[in-house]
Amino acid sequence: MEKIQRYINENDQLARHLGIEVTAIGPGTATARMRLSREHVNSLGMAHGGTLFTLADMAFAAASNSYGSVALGVQASIHYHRPVSAGMVTATARELAKGGRLASYLVEVRDESNDLVASFQGLVYRKKDAIAC
Amino acid sequence: MEKIQRYINENDQLARHLGIEVTAIGPGTATARMRLSREHVNSLGMAHGGTLFTLADMAFAAASNSYGSVALGVQASIHYHRPVSAGMVTATARELAKGGRLASYLVEVRDESNDLVASFQGLVYRKKDAIAC
Amino acid sequence: MEKIQRYINENDQLARHLGIEVTAIGPGTATARMRLSREHVNSLGMAHGGTLFTLADMAFAAASNSYGSVALGVQASIHYHRPVSAGMVTATARELAKGGRLASYLVEVRDESNDLVASFQGLVYRKKDAIAC
Amino acid sequence: MEKIQRYINENDQLARHLGIEVTAIGPGTATARMRLSREHVNSLGMAHGGTLFTLADMAFAAASNSYGSVALGVQASIHYHRPVSAGMVTATARELAKGGRLASYLVEVRDESNDLVASFQGLVYRKKDAIAC
Repeated sequence: MEKIQRYINENDQLARHLGIEVTAIGPGTATARMRLSREHVNSLGMAHGGTLFTLADMAFAAASNSYGSVALGVQASIHYHRPVSAGMVTATARELAKGGRLASYLVEVRDESNDLVASFQGLVYRKKDAIAC
Repeated sequence: MEKIQRYINENDQLARHLGIEVTAIGPGTATARMRLSREHVNSLGMAHGGTLFTLADMAFAAASNSYGSVALGVQASIHYHRPVSAGMVTATARELAKGGRLASYLVEVRDESNDLVASFQGLVYRKKDAIAC
Repeated sequence: MEKIQRYINENDQLARHLGIEVTAIGPGTATARMRLSREHVNSLGMAHGGTLFTLADMAFAAASNSYGSVALGVQASIHYHRPVSAGMVTATARELAKGGRLASYLVEVRDESNDLVASFQGLVYRKKDAIAC
Repeated sequence: MEKIQRYINENDQLARHLGIEVTAIGPGTATARMRLSREHVNSLGMAHGGTLFTLADMAFAAASNSYGSVALGVQASIHYHRPVSAGMVTATARELAKGGRLASYLVEVRDESNDLVASFQGLVYRKKDAIAC
């Protein structure tokens, strides 16, 4: 799984462009984090919805690909609970259910004070192909 | 509304960082677009879920802020219909319903062939504050 | 497709119990309707979220099963736009996208004045089995 | 809170019609359950999406109204993880976040073997009005 984590961190270009790093991966779980800076905010100066979504999506992607076969995101939803504008933000994904073809994950996004900033739920379609890492 | 469009394009730092531009805005509607390049893809080389979400989110934000008072995104969901890896991608938002405090938008994301790549539904909380543009 | 419509109307026990009828079905589209009565409301006397969801779900199910092979709902989301407490309510589903295994539908729920009461988006997993109708 | 629980169980007509009972309520939490029978299934003989949604929605409604002021559901999404066709089904809601006007809840629906059947996330708008119980 370390191999998958390294593969994602090296090859996910959007994550690199935004400074998001997958910091842990286990069977059906993963953690991703980023330090908020100027390029991550919206016109109100708060972390952009797209920033928090992408952070959550990285934990979701790492968790759902942790078994070594390709999992493609097909649906996701996010609730924003409170604004955040600076500091380290961390997303933690856990598996809710996994079937033959589909699996579902819950991701919590927390700020430096460990307050819940957003919650995310995503669904993947699991292919049979192995990840080319 | 042109003023709001310009304000968003100048001040939304994530949109600038990703090369997303709001190209049209009307009452409850907006269009945003971007040209996909290397920094927008995931480790499979396809447009990242976070890229398509952020593009849709920009059309959603512009449409929901089009009336001149601040609208904050509180929830969004996205369905990914087909992969896209290159070219111009366009998001078009329209209002489904608008009440005193809440309003709901549907966003379609299409590729250069006008095929539907993703669909997005978002909910905003409407504040009384005017946008400081 | 008429055969599928009749099959659903005769065999969907929840729809029968709630008085929901599928009134039209086409390739990837369907309409369902119900007349609101006392057993459909919540403790505030308005149509229950579960009532409007189930009505939308019936249009979604009919539309996604219209091709004759079994489609199973795997995810759905609903936005409630305005309360409704009486009269005929109608749900109309249309297909947003259809791939080999997954397909996505948008459903609008409208009251007698044709005002949008709720909007629903759902995703199905398409099996190869034919519907046993 | 017992008063609110009793009020919901006596006045929610859809819940009564479907045999759903709120069995516990606490600050921001609630449990609802039902025994599946013939009128709860779809044309495949499995618990209907609308049945599981309504069960989850009842736990969501009780949890979000537990503080004594009216909370109106504005959005909800559900993931179906595995089919269930008989026995007791239980939905447990917990609060993810609560602000001045909005609050968010996660609901897990489990079958008799305690397997996760569906997960539900819902958002309410909190009014200032007290519940008329």
